[in-house]
Amino acid sequence: MSFVAEETIKGPASAGHVAGSGTPRRVLVAGGSGYTGALAARLIDRHPQFELAAVTSRSDAGLKLSDLYPQHRVDTVLSELDLDLGRDFDASIVAYPHGAAAPVVAALRERGVRVVDLSADFRLRDRDSYAHWYGEHGAPELFGTGVYGLPELYGPHVAAADLVANPGCFPTATLLALAPIARSGTMTDVVVDVKSGVSGAGRTATDRTHFVTVDENVVAYGVAGHRHAPEVDQELALLGANVTATVQPHLLPIDQGELVSCYVTTSEPWSQERLDEAYRTWAEEHPFLELAPAPPGVRDVRATNVCALHACADARTGKVLVFAAIDNLWKGAASQAVQNLNLMFGLPETLGIEP
Amino acid sequence: MSFVAEETIKGPASAGHVAGSGTPRRVLVAGGSGYTGALAARLIDRHPQFELAAVTSRSDAGLKLSDLYPQHRVDTVLSELDLDLGRDFDASIVAYPHGAAAPVVAALRERGVRVVDLSADFRLRDRDSYAHWYGEHGAPELFGTGVYGLPELYGPHVAAADLVANPGCFPTATLLALAPIARSGTMTDVVVDVKSGVSGAGRTATDRTHFVTVDENVVAYGVAGHRHAPEVDQELALLGANVTATVQPHLLPIDQGELVSCYVTTSEPWSQERLDEAYRTWAEEHPFLELAPAPPGVRDVRATNVCALHACADARTGKVLVFAAIDNLWKGAASQAVQNLNLMFGLPETLGIEP
Amino acid sequence: MSFVAEETIKGPASAGHVAGSGTPRRVLVAGGSGYTGALAARLIDRHPQFELAAVTSRSDAGLKLSDLYPQHRVDTVLSELDLDLGRDFDASIVAYPHGAAAPVVAALRERGVRVVDLSADFRLRDRDSYAHWYGEHGAPELFGTGVYGLPELYGPHVAAADLVANPGCFPTATLLALAPIARSGTMTDVVVDVKSGVSGAGRTATDRTHFVTVDENVVAYGVAGHRHAPEVDQELALLGANVTATVQPHLLPIDQGELVSCYVTTSEPWSQERLDEAYRTWAEEHPFLELAPAPPGVRDVRATNVCALHACADARTGKVLVFAAIDNLWKGAASQAVQNLNLMFGLPETLGIEP
Amino acid sequence: MSFVAEETIKGPASAGHVAGSGTPRRVLVAGGSGYTGALAARLIDRHPQFELAAVTSRSDAGLKLSDLYPQHRVDTVLSELDLDLGRDFDASIVAYPHGAAAPVVAALRERGVRVVDLSADFRLRDRDSYAHWYGEHGAPELFGTGVYGLPELYGPHVAAADLVANPGCFPTATLLALAPIARSGTMTDVVVDVKSGVSGAGRTATDRTHFVTVDENVVAYGVAGHRHAPEVDQELALLGANVTATVQPHLLPIDQGELVSCYVTTSEPWSQERLDEAYRTWAEEHPFLELAPAPPGVRDVRATNVCALHACADARTGKVLVFAAIDNLWKGAASQAVQNLNLMFGLPETLGIEP
Repeated sequence: MSFVAEETIKGPASAGHVAGSGTPRRVLVAGGSGYTGALAARLIDRHPQFELAAVTSRSDAGLKLSDLYPQHRVDTVLSELDLDLGRDFDASIVAYPHGAAAPVVAALRERGVRVVDLSADFRLRDRDSYAHWYGEHGAPELFGTGVYGLPELYGPHVAAADLVANPGCFPTATLLALAPIARSGTMTDVVVDVKSGVSGAGRTATDRTHFVTVDENVVAYGVAGHRHAPEVDQELALLGANVTATVQPHLLPIDQGELVSCYVTTSEPWSQERLDEAYRTWAEEHPFLELAPAPPGVRDVRATNVCALHACADARTGKVLVFAAIDNLWKGAASQAVQNLNLMFGLPETLGIEP
Repeated sequence: MSFVAEETIKGPASAGHVAGSGTPRRVLVAGGSGYTGALAARLIDRHPQFELAAVTSRSDAGLKLSDLYPQHRVDTVLSELDLDLGRDFDASIVAYPHGAAAPVVAALRERGVRVVDLSADFRLRDRDSYAHWYGEHGAPELFGTGVYGLPELYGPHVAAADLVANPGCFPTATLLALAPIARSGTMTDVVVDVKSGVSGAGRTATDRTHFVTVDENVVAYGVAGHRHAPEVDQELALLGANVTATVQPHLLPIDQGELVSCYVTTSEPWSQERLDEAYRTWAEEHPFLELAPAPPGVRDVRATNVCALHACADARTGKVLVFAAIDNLWKGAASQAVQNLNLMFGLPETLGIEP
Repeated sequence: MSFVAEETIKGPASAGHVAGSGTPRRVLVAGGSGYTGALAARLIDRHPQFELAAVTSRSDAGLKLSDLYPQHRVDTVLSELDLDLGRDFDASIVAYPHGAAAPVVAALRERGVRVVDLSADFRLRDRDSYAHWYGEHGAPELFGTGVYGLPELYGPHVAAADLVANPGCFPTATLLALAPIARSGTMTDVVVDVKSGVSGAGRTATDRTHFVTVDENVVAYGVAGHRHAPEVDQELALLGANVTATVQPHLLPIDQGELVSCYVTTSEPWSQERLDEAYRTWAEEHPFLELAPAPPGVRDVRATNVCALHACADARTGKVLVFAAIDNLWKGAASQAVQNLNLMFGLPETLGIEP
Repeated sequence: MSFVAEETIKGPASAGHVAGSGTPRRVLVAGGSGYTGALAARLIDRHPQFELAAVTSRSDAGLKLSDLYPQHRVDTVLSELDLDLGRDFDASIVAYPHGAAAPVVAALRERGVRVVDLSADFRLRDRDSYAHWYGEHGAPELFGTGVYGLPELYGPHVAAADLVANPGCFPTATLLALAPIARSGTMTDVVVDVKSGVSGAGRTATDRTHFVTVDENVVAYGVAGHRHAPEVDQELALLGANVTATVQPHLLPIDQGELVSCYVTTSEPWSQERLDEAYRTWAEEHPFLELAPAPPGVRDVRATNVCALHACADARTGKVLVFAAIDNLWKGAASQAVQNLNLMFGLPETLGIEP
């Protein structure tokens, strides 16, 4: 089980077991026809140290990626996944739905390919919890062997890992928002109100993603039980906060971007000075964290790997309010996968995804 | 002081001191160049029992209302407010900014005109609280003499009132969302995450309301202290919940509409059955409350006086979640003013604003 | 063939063969699960002289209309179409796709039901043209027997008709924009650039209607051959302009609304005075035409049966520019159907759809 | 007068009088608080061969650029323009309004600074035309000495120029759309329907740019005489098409992006094959031109210097339809300025603005 405490790894973040520079690493993107896989392919395609070796798609093989996504300007032809080619790849970003991802990840791992998995299949550490929220697991022998790929929390582990479970977009923003308070041991309750763009619902055309349904609208969904909640609880507990978080998503008429508004109850009051100090330290330690002087908007982080943070002690209510804005397709998925790959191959964390 | 408990007035809601039907009542809209005043003028103009006697504007006198708002199709010429005409009016809807509203309200009351005031000037019952949030009051002799014009809570008082303080749009949605729980005496804490369209920020063109600022964005504002919070606290206390509510607004890229997501902590667990029963009763008693089978979107209530409600007991966290959707310009302002006027003149509550 | 010249019918518009008032007419809406059928059902449901007798749906029978469209607040249960009930209905609005509509229309006509058909099946007068653009016709015996239901052009014919072909949304706006010039005999060429909201593409969820595809985008479609072009040509010719119109639609990130920008070449120059006079007369004759002092926006006509017009003689180029804004779901479909029904039953043209 | 025919300059595009590589060139951005100046500053800041030497602002001096535009992540402090520093700069991008730009440009040129001017002050070659559309010129001695900075038309001239007039966004898209036909000598008339995002109207907050005005709306503006029309006519004539173009802009609810739909009348019919060949050649010659297999959307070119083109011969009407999509802030302004600077300093045309 690789969910060891962060402090137990002494080596520097750059101590991934493959050194940087030299020949570009060949990266497979498995599942390139969805929004996150396609963006991952684009980022790998432009990356100075990775080579986009192949992009696979079950539904759109034979098309060029640019046929589906002209804006990405990646002319790679989508192909069926051919595992015989596994040994040709140094790494893979797997962008399959949960359940379908695990067997592909297992097959790639068997062939020695290092994997960043965008699905939920390797994020949870508790088998029962996985079964409850997602059903049967597709590669039970690998369950629990992944590193939770939030680099700001687990950078050194990621550097040493062969299987990284890229966090969900809600947990990414929520954990980056709450880590300084969670670590203090003073968090006793939290409400996380999530506001998400439509790309988070994926590329499938449904009534729910129809323009006329979304436009001029805002609506809560997944009430009293979104799958990202147990992931948040698990990680908050590891940080030091034993809470059952209320995580409530809402769908907004924006294409990409996600704002989490966190309402934190603490066992002791936090002054604004203590908050400022804690978040300043937190942001200074990590290149993609930014402290915003006012509550950040998702426009401020669009098409970047940045998480913008703003924390406020509310003297009137005694609560702490923390706002975090990310781009759900970037820091919430594809560019965070590249950040993880950078660490895994001993490259600078920001390479190819500089804001 | 008219903030008496609801039960103390025995008479039926229709017992306003002016009977319905007969000659249409002449209604002045003071401040018709803003979004809410203009809509109020439109609603009065189409109302079967009210006559739009005049629409005033300080900045746009001489223009027709339809020059500013072609969509309202009201050709009335905007005029300067002439108080000498006061005795010509049976009633007035005052749509001035807070501070500026109070003296106009006072002058109209002196001339015997019954008033629904859209500003915050007569909503608070505590002078210190008003001074803290808004500054000096413009008509201190009238402070505390208005009835809080949320008809679902104070219908009989409204019917008998000469001065009605139309609630803010956030308190309207929040109180309609929370009344059944507040009245139970079991509410111990509440977080209200408000998502509001841009018309709530008014017609003034600023950086904040520029299309390019708002589009593809979502951002919190008024952090740790929006002026609507004390209004919510005051009314929740009158209902039986002594809490300091966290009320946090966010600006969304929609023109009109408002969703409040309420996260309620209670002193005892609520079953879904108890919730369903409480909200069913609540909705059945009031023609503009609707129970939605799933969380409502603001599209569902656009351009109506309806408040759509959905309540859910979250077994995982023990919290109760309540969602309420209104149109901020309608139920949050102009059509609620007409609902109040209907009650004040003994007319059916829904007249002229049927959904 | 009922496409006679307008002048040949002498009777007044009110001379429909069923007098108004009295018992409400029972109206069937066939095909109520799409955007236009659902809106038609709502308008009939609120209409003072029509009764919503039934709403049918092939795909959603058993649901209430309000389950699909909470905003319409029509609780009628959707049913399968039962033609045995035909004699129970005085009239029907048929909102089926082209091809599927014709047989249903034929069956209803056989049972004596007067029909307004929203599809393209009875708009064209030339069988070959229909075959070219739409394929085989579903009720060839009825082809050419409908009246083209643009009341501003064919009001008296509509009043006397049993089968009315509601125009397409592009032709509606285009013909209302161009009629005064077309009738002058001076139009020699016209480019019609159409900008349409997404509801015009229907309720079916596709890649093209996915929020993420449409948002922050604008794109031309149906290039060099949209099906509405022959309909425009046919009607312009009847008005006196023998042109092959270029009709080019574009999809915009708005839910409903349509703007046509018409660039007219004429055989002789038009002065602004002549234009103003022609359009003033045109608008004065018809209650739903409005002359806008500046180019109209689609917001100005949202959720109304109004067509807002603005015409300008461009001295620099010699062209005449005409802009027309409608709501594609209202004047472009459902409320125009009600306008037609009003005429067919001798009711005031604006009844139930007053702006 | 530098508006010489393109063929008269023999040297290669790389023959700018300053060789590439070596020490980064120091670039001043004058007028950095507007949308285009701020983006120009960002692009220069990230450019491998340019150094952002200073960013000036009259209204916001003392603030950091990132205070106004967090998304650009440029921490440079905005300063007043200090011409004494002129000799410190190798080049300047001037982003002032027309009229105000010319004197600044003149002062910078006096100090030997090479200038790309984003305003209209040096685009027109005819003094009377400038006076008619813009009024008195602020530096008449420089009038007509600039090179029209559309690199696809005037690359070699740009390379040799000291003063480049960056084209307007509408002319940029229109000329790139029409050049192949204009050069053929067969164009006899053209209607250009422009659909533009709100950023094109600038950062000033007005009724017209208020979110509530723009949202769910589309409206024509500048009817029968937009200032970009004479610029289009001038350049079409130089290409070989003596037409008076109808150029009609419309405002759309998108933040950035611009689509031009061109309806071309020709003196002889164009086959689709001839069109395809002409546009293929045109696109192959220039790195930022892309041929789209279907009409392009503005999403496809967002945040790039690309112009996407699609041309279609309409057999039905005999017209040629050409669609061109650009990002108005990028190819329509700031990134095109960088493309010009690249040429002026002998750098690869795409450096720092690769799509």
